[in-house]
Amino acid sequence: MKIVLIGAGNLATRLGLHFKACGMNMLQVYSRTLAAAMCLAEQLDCLYTHVPGDVTAEADLYVVAINDKAFHDVLPKINFGNKLVVHTAGSIDIQILSDYAVNYGVFYPLQTFSKVREVDFFSVPICIEANSKENGRVLEELAKKVSHDVRYFSSKQRRQIHLSAVFVCNFVNHLYTIGGELLNEEGISFDILHPLIHETAIKAMAHDPKNVQTGPAVRYDRNVIEHHIEMLKNHPEWGNLYKDLSSSIHHLYQ
Amino acid sequence: MKIVLIGAGNLATRLGLHFKACGMNMLQVYSRTLAAAMCLAEQLDCLYTHVPGDVTAEADLYVVAINDKAFHDVLPKINFGNKLVVHTAGSIDIQILSDYAVNYGVFYPLQTFSKVREVDFFSVPICIEANSKENGRVLEELAKKVSHDVRYFSSKQRRQIHLSAVFVCNFVNHLYTIGGELLNEEGISFDILHPLIHETAIKAMAHDPKNVQTGPAVRYDRNVIEHHIEMLKNHPEWGNLYKDLSSSIHHLYQ
Repeated sequence: MKIVLIGAGNLATRLGLHFKACGMNMLQVYSRTLAAAMCLAEQLDCLYTHVPGDVTAEADLYVVAINDKAFHDVLPKINFGNKLVVHTAGSIDIQILSDYAVNYGVFYPLQTFSKVREVDFFSVPICIEANSKENGRVLEELAKKVSHDVRYFSSKQRRQIHLSAVFVCNFVNHLYTIGGELLNEEGISFDILHPLIHETAIKAMAHDPKNVQTGPAVRYDRNVIEHHIEMLKNHPEWGNLYKDLSSSIHHLYQ
Repeated sequence: MKIVLIGAGNLATRLGLHFKACGMNMLQVYSRTLAAAMCLAEQLDCLYTHVPGDVTAEADLYVVAINDKAFHDVLPKINFGNKLVVHTAGSIDIQILSDYAVNYGVFYPLQTFSKVREVDFFSVPICIEANSKENGRVLEELAKKVSHDVRYFSSKQRRQIHLSAVFVCNFVNHLYTIGGELLNEEGISFDILHPLIHETAIKAMAHDPKNVQTGPAVRYDRNVIEHHIEMLKNHPEWGNLYKDLSSSIHHLYQ
């Protein structure tokens, strides 16, 4: 299967490298930024362009991994013919592609990607959707070559998955950041939190997180809560988060 | 070393079982609730009581693992003589024990404990503090028998560690819960989030979490953020958390 990557960011990089490792024929990389296109194409040993009109028509599949704000700028300038076009975004409806392609779908890998880190891609759940049974079959076949966990979802379901992911990944990472900053103020190394961070994650996966909530908020330990809020007086934004998260926990278990 | 446990909750249970496994001589368990005292004493093969005045004077060390609100009810009724007494709470000053004991300290294991789950106690950081060098030496020796990670902290530092732990454990678990509830509404199983939860935790430990923040808030992707808030309209409390966490992320990286 001959593939063109539209995009050269974190996700496009991880996808491209893994597709290549799985034996796919990577044909070309497009990016608005020439340097980014060149850099990824170098790693994939393929062609590159920063001109949408120069995207080759020879591929079987076009994988769009650019910011959704750029869709309307870039996609109308590419001639996809009747080839299969997929986007990779959790939050975007499949229908957005109907303006640019006849055969289209979604290939959303549910994971956090950074250029600095390799992930075990075979364990990443791939959420797929397609505009026809036949396109669904093609996408499923491809997805099963690159991951052990492939599932069909509607655009509505995928949006909900993406929203959940923001809570359990992006927001969680921000709480890790706050924890680290607070320790830093007392000259304490972040690594003291590692076993706690690890156990909290493992426990939520082994049990339902709703059933293993601990801490002052679920006990509604007013002394501790008030003292903590006082300790955060120099960080009013974090103090508010502390209050709102504690109330939300308290209300859920009341 | 002969030890008495004051308390029979999650922490007392995990401590007692691990101390016993490490060869300590567990003498007695006290709990206000007779059934809880009996249940833990049964597992530790030791004596039990629910009467503070019946706590034995024969121990070398008294480990207080009860809710801090109960300190003033229970501790004055126990005769500690000149024996070493430690509490196990992150948020409580060492000085609270000066009203009840001559030799005292703190033995705070930084981890989340449940009765339903065993943890690898040897990897749990133990934060110790003592009212004298000699008591510090005794506590350090004990702590090193039950954990590979023993560190001295002042009460002020320990309070900050506890506050950080609330963010990276209790609040993080609540975000996992919200993520699970949102999926549930669309009939999607929580396990689809497992690889993401795991990678988010591992990544924050391998790198500084501040350097690996991803998602719509750090990009300040207004379309996605507004759509997510709209999706949370039936959960106003979670919608507010979404807004406040997104603002907090945005301000940190601006």
